[in-house]
Amino acid sequence: MGERVTARRPVVRIDDGRVSRTRDTLAAEEPMEMRVDGEAVSVTMRTPGDDFALALGFCASEGLVADPRDVAQIRYCAGTDPETGENTFNVVDLSTHSGRAVPPELRRHVFTTSSCGICGTASLEVVRKRLEPVVDDPLQIPAETLTTLPGTLREAQAVFERTGGLHAAALFTAEGELLTLREDVGRHNAVDKVIGTIALEGRLPASGHVLMVSGRIAFEIVQKALWARIPAIAAVSAPTSLAVDLAADAGMTLVGFLRDPRMNVYTGAERVLDHDGAPLVQPAAI
Amino acid sequence: MGERVTARRPVVRIDDGRVSRTRDTLAAEEPMEMRVDGEAVSVTMRTPGDDFALALGFCASEGLVADPRDVAQIRYCAGTDPETGENTFNVVDLSTHSGRAVPPELRRHVFTTSSCGICGTASLEVVRKRLEPVVDDPLQIPAETLTTLPGTLREAQAVFERTGGLHAAALFTAEGELLTLREDVGRHNAVDKVIGTIALEGRLPASGHVLMVSGRIAFEIVQKALWARIPAIAAVSAPTSLAVDLAADAGMTLVGFLRDPRMNVYTGAERVLDHDGAPLVQPAAI
Repeated sequence: MGERVTARRPVVRIDDGRVSRTRDTLAAEEPMEMRVDGEAVSVTMRTPGDDFALALGFCASEGLVADPRDVAQIRYCAGTDPETGENTFNVVDLSTHSGRAVPPELRRHVFTTSSCGICGTASLEVVRKRLEPVVDDPLQIPAETLTTLPGTLREAQAVFERTGGLHAAALFTAEGELLTLREDVGRHNAVDKVIGTIALEGRLPASGHVLMVSGRIAFEIVQKALWARIPAIAAVSAPTSLAVDLAADAGMTLVGFLRDPRMNVYTGAERVLDHDGAPLVQPAAI
Repeated sequence: MGERVTARRPVVRIDDGRVSRTRDTLAAEEPMEMRVDGEAVSVTMRTPGDDFALALGFCASEGLVADPRDVAQIRYCAGTDPETGENTFNVVDLSTHSGRAVPPELRRHVFTTSSCGICGTASLEVVRKRLEPVVDDPLQIPAETLTTLPGTLREAQAVFERTGGLHAAALFTAEGELLTLREDVGRHNAVDKVIGTIALEGRLPASGHVLMVSGRIAFEIVQKALWARIPAIAAVSAPTSLAVDLAADAGMTLVGFLRDPRMNVYTGAERVLDHDGAPLVQPAAI
């Protein structure tokens, strides 16, 4: 699969009017169809690689698989390329022990409701009903450690350096150690791959850890982290207001604009420690 | 609707160990359900605003509405907030003159196929069957004009400056004049809003124009531009390999890493002119 993560294409490079021809390494992109017990639930454009983790992470955080232990098998279906006749490795089936069909109301999207106008309040309510808050998670992390995460992430991003086209997500310990890094053309896919990977490795719940993403933090990223019981999320860029609302509601720590030596702590600041190891903010003070 | 584009939240700011409290302006995010002739086809997380344009742009480029003239009406459904009882303005119904139900195979995603393994080749094939190439589009644009687009886009991005959390897409003339700018928490949504807006204004096809996006160029962005007959796409960041393949296949010009005075022209370089007004590359030379 490794060679499918990037692809080379010819390019005309212009620099201040000077024209040169070369070849450029680009992030690969392929559609992937996900099926649960044989039924198609989603098609996503993704960077090939870690496809089983992507399928599990997506199905889990979308509420299609309530418990990772219900997963019996994940495998590629026998789809073939129309030109070469070879398996495309682009159709993944996740079969469950229970064999329960996916409930119709979950087939499209967890936020689809017919009973009321959907809105931020309703979205928070759906997540609240389905997932317990992580307010009691004992994670504590020094601000100085947080500021090291973006640099560690960048150094580890081999593909990103070459293509400039990939989002990254990574799981860190409270000591700033990078445990699992995944990259994808889609930001949500990168998070699904990280969560799916640690689920496949039997390392859930991910209490005491920090999820770092290379871009922005939107609502669904927070929802995915909460499903994996990750109590803190950090990002180089901005969160959305609904992401902040869900993090507050779920007792999570949310850090944006993390650019050494600065950061914005939007929620859960009591888990962030100063030089003396004391919380920067007392619980309930924010 | 204006006040729903951003939202203010409290934040603990840390700068080199110094802690301060303030309020931060964030990009708002709300779910929006799209219906065609009463049937729900998709739920997307989006920044409120230009919702009719978003619905039209999404439905059009996904193949749910083949011809913009078939659109009879676009309106908000009467969904209400569970707390306030007020309309959420988050459910949009697009009704057609023909009243044709959405074909089942298009309900989830245009790339869903059951007959073969889905792959990049199959994806290109689907688009090729549905959309004519724009290889004959007469657009010509000086490289010097292209280098001005990112600056013009940034200057016009009022919300982005405040929140740091929004993607932008904009339609430009070959003279570098910005015609239509839209922002959204989702990159695809920003493009759908631009294309939906020019469709609502009766300005399709958008021959001779350039679509500029603030982030990366993935396959679906190229597909959306092709539907609107836009012959050129430019971006500050990288394209994916499949985006380049579709642009080449459709006779489009694709420019990445556009950062004055540099750019990478991946396809259609014969539309880009040098100081003397001559094409930098002869047709068929790339």
